[in-house]
Amino acid sequence: MITLHTWTTPNGRKPLIMLEELGVPYQTVAVDIHKHEQFRPEFLALSPNNKIPALVDDAGEDGSVTMFESGAILTYLAERHGKLLPAQGPARYRVLSWLHWQIGGLGPMFGQLGFFAGQDDNPAREHFMEEAHRLLDVLDRQLASGPYLAGDAYSIADIAAYPWLMAAREKLADTLGQAIDGKPDVARWLALVGGRPAVRTAMAWQPETTA
Amino acid sequence: MITLHTWTTPNGRKPLIMLEELGVPYQTVAVDIHKHEQFRPEFLALSPNNKIPALVDDAGEDGSVTMFESGAILTYLAERHGKLLPAQGPARYRVLSWLHWQIGGLGPMFGQLGFFAGQDDNPAREHFMEEAHRLLDVLDRQLASGPYLAGDAYSIADIAAYPWLMAAREKLADTLGQAIDGKPDVARWLALVGGRPAVRTAMAWQPETTA
Repeated sequence: MITLHTWTTPNGRKPLIMLEELGVPYQTVAVDIHKHEQFRPEFLALSPNNKIPALVDDAGEDGSVTMFESGAILTYLAERHGKLLPAQGPARYRVLSWLHWQIGGLGPMFGQLGFFAGQDDNPAREHFMEEAHRLLDVLDRQLASGPYLAGDAYSIADIAAYPWLMAAREKLADTLGQAIDGKPDVARWLALVGGRPAVRTAMAWQPETTA
Repeated sequence: MITLHTWTTPNGRKPLIMLEELGVPYQTVAVDIHKHEQFRPEFLALSPNNKIPALVDDAGEDGSVTMFESGAILTYLAERHGKLLPAQGPARYRVLSWLHWQIGGLGPMFGQLGFFAGQDDNPAREHFMEEAHRLLDVLDRQLASGPYLAGDAYSIADIAAYPWLMAAREKLADTLGQAIDGKPDVARWLALVGGRPAVRTAMAWQPETTA
């Protein structure tokens, strides 16, 4: 059985989307970051960086697998089940390039913007706002060239990026959110990805909804 | 032939280390970020995020591969040549967890600290300094449990992290650099990784040294 330790943040929703897409059995353990539960010793034993998500698969092909970092977890699930990441060739590395772009760029920069967004007098706010808009332009250019982030096929790169865009639309509605809605190709892609039943289920996940 | 478009930054040195470790033929194209060469149209065609490194392998198994993002490039080279990333099992996903920790955490946070480091009056400086020290503590705890970042074997996770630690030691010598040197397990690991001939060659790479 797969056990996902997660929360309702963008990084926390990524593996939820993936598990719903795969349709495999899993259980969730809610790690309430507002209660600082990510600092508990039992969670640290799974996730040495004290961050959600973490995943334990005790029925892996080569024994139990314990993982942390959302991008690594998406890669594991894709490889384990042979879905949403081509096994080889140029298409595989297009997906990995765009996955890493989300992990190393869009995620951290949107995240820092969220941190500084309420600090009007902090010059860092403007720095991260500019960087977020630049990354949005990169996303928009890419989505003008094909339906999905890595080209013709839906992949773990889309799963990684989607929750971050949705969080920005909601939490930074008057600034970055407006810019997102002003990009027709981004809006089309958000509707396309957001219309998937697995994505809807995962985005609606709340700790209370599970036992 | 592999062509690596790169520069002398931590992210730019990662694929240089990997190519030297593999001992495969490659050529470099210097992209001078001080001259803003990463914004040239011919580079944007390779790297849609306008960042180095980018890699073109025109002798890939399934045709030409063009990639961007240092973590994705390391993964490609490891899989193409069957080295420094186990093909499967728990050991593979330990490496990917720590690789992604560097890509999504240590790299962006050390990078932003570098950006704000000279701005003494900016409260963002303290924020990123705290986060960098926290990440250094995570690294130190992990290296206390084994010789390399992902355990017993040298891997692309070490290659990803090493240049960032070395840059911090050099450019933030009085603050983060002192903290790094005060961690015996980190210092041991830096000496172990830094003693490898491939790492020495790659860290010494300068644009002038290539045609």
